[in-house]
Amino acid sequence: MSLQSQASPEAQKYDIVIVGAGPVGLMLSTCLARWGYKIKHIDNRPEPTKTGRADGIQPRSLDLLRNMGLKSPLMAHKPARVYEVAFWDPTKEGTGIARTGTWASCPSFIDARYPFTTLLHQGHIERVFLTDLAKNGVEVQRPWTIKGFTSDEAENPEYPVEVQLEHVEGGVSETIRAKYLFGGEGARSFIRDQLKIAVRHKDPIEYVWGVMDGVVQTDFPDIKMKCTIHSDHGSIMVIPREDNMVRLYIQIASSTDPDFQPRKTATAEEVQASAARILQPYTISWERVEWFSVYPIGQGLGDRYTLDQRVFLGGDAVHTHSPKAGQGMNTAFLDAQNLAWKIHLVESGFADRSLLETYEQERRQVAENLLDFDNRYAKLFSQRVSAASEAEAAMEKEEAGETQTENEFIKAFKEACEFTSGYGVAYQPNVLNWSPSHPARSSVINPPGTTLRTGRLLINANVTRVVDANVVHLEQEVPMNGSFRIFIFAGNPSVTAGALTDFANRLQSKDSFYMSYQRPDLDQVSHHEQHNPRSHFFTFCTIFADRRSNIEISHHVPSLLARYRAHVYADDQWDRRVPEAKAPAHAKAGLDQEKGGVVVVRPDGYVGLVAQLVDGSETVDALNQYFGAFTTKKLGQKLSLL
Amino acid sequence: MSLQSQASPEAQKYDIVIVGAGPVGLMLSTCLARWGYKIKHIDNRPEPTKTGRADGIQPRSLDLLRNMGLKSPLMAHKPARVYEVAFWDPTKEGTGIARTGTWASCPSFIDARYPFTTLLHQGHIERVFLTDLAKNGVEVQRPWTIKGFTSDEAENPEYPVEVQLEHVEGGVSETIRAKYLFGGEGARSFIRDQLKIAVRHKDPIEYVWGVMDGVVQTDFPDIKMKCTIHSDHGSIMVIPREDNMVRLYIQIASSTDPDFQPRKTATAEEVQASAARILQPYTISWERVEWFSVYPIGQGLGDRYTLDQRVFLGGDAVHTHSPKAGQGMNTAFLDAQNLAWKIHLVESGFADRSLLETYEQERRQVAENLLDFDNRYAKLFSQRVSAASEAEAAMEKEEAGETQTENEFIKAFKEACEFTSGYGVAYQPNVLNWSPSHPARSSVINPPGTTLRTGRLLINANVTRVVDANVVHLEQEVPMNGSFRIFIFAGNPSVTAGALTDFANRLQSKDSFYMSYQRPDLDQVSHHEQHNPRSHFFTFCTIFADRRSNIEISHHVPSLLARYRAHVYADDQWDRRVPEAKAPAHAKAGLDQEKGGVVVVRPDGYVGLVAQLVDGSETVDALNQYFGAFTTKKLGQKLSLL
Repeated sequence: MSLQSQASPEAQKYDIVIVGAGPVGLMLSTCLARWGYKIKHIDNRPEPTKTGRADGIQPRSLDLLRNMGLKSPLMAHKPARVYEVAFWDPTKEGTGIARTGTWASCPSFIDARYPFTTLLHQGHIERVFLTDLAKNGVEVQRPWTIKGFTSDEAENPEYPVEVQLEHVEGGVSETIRAKYLFGGEGARSFIRDQLKIAVRHKDPIEYVWGVMDGVVQTDFPDIKMKCTIHSDHGSIMVIPREDNMVRLYIQIASSTDPDFQPRKTATAEEVQASAARILQPYTISWERVEWFSVYPIGQGLGDRYTLDQRVFLGGDAVHTHSPKAGQGMNTAFLDAQNLAWKIHLVESGFADRSLLETYEQERRQVAENLLDFDNRYAKLFSQRVSAASEAEAAMEKEEAGETQTENEFIKAFKEACEFTSGYGVAYQPNVLNWSPSHPARSSVINPPGTTLRTGRLLINANVTRVVDANVVHLEQEVPMNGSFRIFIFAGNPSVTAGALTDFANRLQSKDSFYMSYQRPDLDQVSHHEQHNPRSHFFTFCTIFADRRSNIEISHHVPSLLARYRAHVYADDQWDRRVPEAKAPAHAKAGLDQEKGGVVVVRPDGYVGLVAQLVDGSETVDALNQYFGAFTTKKLGQKLSLL
Repeated sequence: MSLQSQASPEAQKYDIVIVGAGPVGLMLSTCLARWGYKIKHIDNRPEPTKTGRADGIQPRSLDLLRNMGLKSPLMAHKPARVYEVAFWDPTKEGTGIARTGTWASCPSFIDARYPFTTLLHQGHIERVFLTDLAKNGVEVQRPWTIKGFTSDEAENPEYPVEVQLEHVEGGVSETIRAKYLFGGEGARSFIRDQLKIAVRHKDPIEYVWGVMDGVVQTDFPDIKMKCTIHSDHGSIMVIPREDNMVRLYIQIASSTDPDFQPRKTATAEEVQASAARILQPYTISWERVEWFSVYPIGQGLGDRYTLDQRVFLGGDAVHTHSPKAGQGMNTAFLDAQNLAWKIHLVESGFADRSLLETYEQERRQVAENLLDFDNRYAKLFSQRVSAASEAEAAMEKEEAGETQTENEFIKAFKEACEFTSGYGVAYQPNVLNWSPSHPARSSVINPPGTTLRTGRLLINANVTRVVDANVVHLEQEVPMNGSFRIFIFAGNPSVTAGALTDFANRLQSKDSFYMSYQRPDLDQVSHHEQHNPRSHFFTFCTIFADRRSNIEISHHVPSLLARYRAHVYADDQWDRRVPEAKAPAHAKAGLDQEKGGVVVVRPDGYVGLVAQLVDGSETVDALNQYFGAFTTKKLGQKLSLL
């Protein structure tokens, strides 16, 4: 068949070509489409996932999806929610299996809004993203595949990437130019192979897994829970699903087996028979099998996520691991989100191109930790399962200041919970995550007492919005729109009045981070715009340590900040974690309830910088120094000479 | 034009004809359609409400909508939420208006899941119901109207009602037969007029109101709050809406005016000019007006809601009042819900036809209270507004047992809050709401200490579902499906083991309320049916005062109750209202945390009966006596002779 190329002499131009419409590709596409980028998104499957595949959304991912307005449509599918993991082991008497313990999937020592894992199949998840994409005019082109690409910034600085695409059945092709190319094609990435990026195996052991989704009838009491079952007949993992379904993972072979064959397989009947043996003395019968698959998987980590900051990889294309901890899709989401806002800040002229280097730096470290964790997780399971609830209790006491015990097991357990819940991600210091080696050296940075850590998520807190008295989740108030979120914890209004005025005045200096990046369409902005009335890159939230009824915006908030009137809050909502605090959000962040403090949060919700709120220009100067480390313009010049 | 009648000699038969597709008609239709009834539903408007009309959903109505699975689709419209009401009055200096106080719309002394009023326009609300109806094959026939009807049980005991329907433009008509006819046509009800049911006016004062929905630009600081504004230039009520809109209610005339004319009107421009004067010193300009209407309204209450228990009225057809307290739609919802399950219990052969008499008895009393309240509400507003927050604080102290002050104002304020939130509904004793005069006379009924009151809602409580460790809202666990909800608070499992076994055994007596109404299709019921595996009329929930991990369903729950395995709970979730309680749900209900108790909750969530959980047959006997007062079969015969 002759290839009919549809490429015109002047190839079509896109901001980005995204290959693969699984979780990583869809998250990236959804973010960039909302922010107005021109996207070519292809997938080699004729339609979205119909059954099976990834299905676990961790607590922190649910926060993220809510921040994007996508949580409600997902929850409309009535997913299963996993609050606890149960452990089953063989009885000494040889009578089959018995429960040896349970373990909260997100114990109370983690301050999570949604302390459960959400289970529903990837097809539902993909469709939520596809519906959102359609609203922004992006449709995934299917079934199309990538045939080749080149990237040469010297030759074409604006659109350095040329990509050849083709219908999977051949016959039609396109050659297009783009600013970026993203490979979210899964473990068998063509783009990764073309870039000759090697995948290293941390753990040399390979496994063959069987996975089956279906509806069962059983007297096994924990069929609605996540279970790890060891028996004399093998091991199984049980995961509940929407619509009365259950997923079983069975390890079919391991490279540690004497007769290991990576192509070893099993039929559905064999897996069912194996499950029946493992579950004894309980019985199980299958009313319906929705999906069944056998696949070999090893741990793998790509050496690089990009070679030239133009062609990027993410998701399974650069990291693979066992399905046990349910981390695949969640890591993919965060890869894509991390890249999305960085591309946006560069392409919109705010950040220096070098900001893109932090994508690989931040996300590859997370994947490396995930692989390390994946190894230790299995050991932890087998080690001292029944001690987990004691560990949890000990931690609660510790939190309450009652005891100060900490042993290795508790440490490992705690780390595992933080990891699986998604709250364990901690980005290392760089231009975005302040540390003493950051160019910003102001003495007001990193005030003593703060519990916030740069590179980690902002604390959760309920506060009262002043204009309408609504009780809201502070950390969710600015949607994922590419803006930095500047939280001004304003303490006691009578104490901070001067500091707030100085802050607002200093912001209005021509060369402040704020005034340097004002909207070009200032005249046309609606009175009702809440988040970005003056700058696309910043939203200001002002939180007073006082009761709502005591706060009068026109009196207490300088007019520059008052323009963000929907983001003025009263820190007056009682919190069980700090029951004695007058201003719980201040208290949880470890900020002075009288003097407050300023927190710069990255567009993805991670803390970038914490500073004191002081009289004079120093607070804004500190922020100028912070942002100036990666913005395209010089900020606060005069002051940085002082 | 000649009328072409399409009625065949053998007229089409329906279970019910519903006239009017506003909130009351749609709620009734939605319930009955879900339960499989054949419905003819007509409305004389060519399409659902496009703009304006009712828009306030009270906290208790949101519970109800959630219980029906309709809350999420409503919330998807991002309605405004009113947490507080602000009061504005003229300043002494004559400088315009100033805020004199605020008032929580649902203060914390009310244990509400959703302590706010939800505002969105009636069209969105109607469409949520219409979408649900379509799923059950019901479409509202528009624009059609009712031309006449007769009802004669003697002539046709099964389908006593004959109804003539006609297209509003004439030309086509239908004559059909039905078991019931419902008039939800609003204040100008044809059906009410035909029945010659008089409407009495409690308060002889009539008003003319102007109402305007639109988008404004203003520096009035409380434009996102509900406000009651009195000024030297007149009065206005402000209500925030979805999509940056605001609704203004302006009283244009009152029959107490010397020159009162019920047909007095005002143009949109006049209303805007009036609003501008009232809001001084603040400015207001209109970007868009979505809806504007002027209408006269007086208080009215129908003498009867039915004459023959076949033709019923509900909603505005039988009660009208001022829009100030935002009660119209909420009262309509509860009218319809109350009638729906009673028709269902009668038509499905469970309850005696006389049960239908409780519809008028219960709902007319509520309307009468509403009208009384409506009068007092205005006075309360003007009386001592600034004292409201003090009153609230005093009540919180009272709840905490710190003080015991109670004055007239606090009482009135408390009552007003309960009323406007929807939690003040208290049905009087009758066959459904046990009292000492109920035929059920067992000594185990109404155990000392319980805080539950028959005819009032069940308490809210978080509990942990045993099978999947999900933390759930106990009061929401059985959906609105026409079943009674039997909550077995089972206390300490080791204490109540005998009582639980006896309860289950006694339930299995051939003439128990449970065995007398088993499903006819027992053999075909799916293993996965959670709510009604054995009887369509009862769901059993068993709640232990213990930690989830201590509860083993196969060991602690008798098999009859264990069949309701998704309804076995651990009462182990800490509650701020009873911080010291080991078993907060037991404690809030005032039930013994060792010995428990049994609570019968009507299909609409109101408590019918509370009984002790005792060894032997007495608990089931008490329930047999209770249900026997209105079931079609004799229950527990042998025992009732003891």
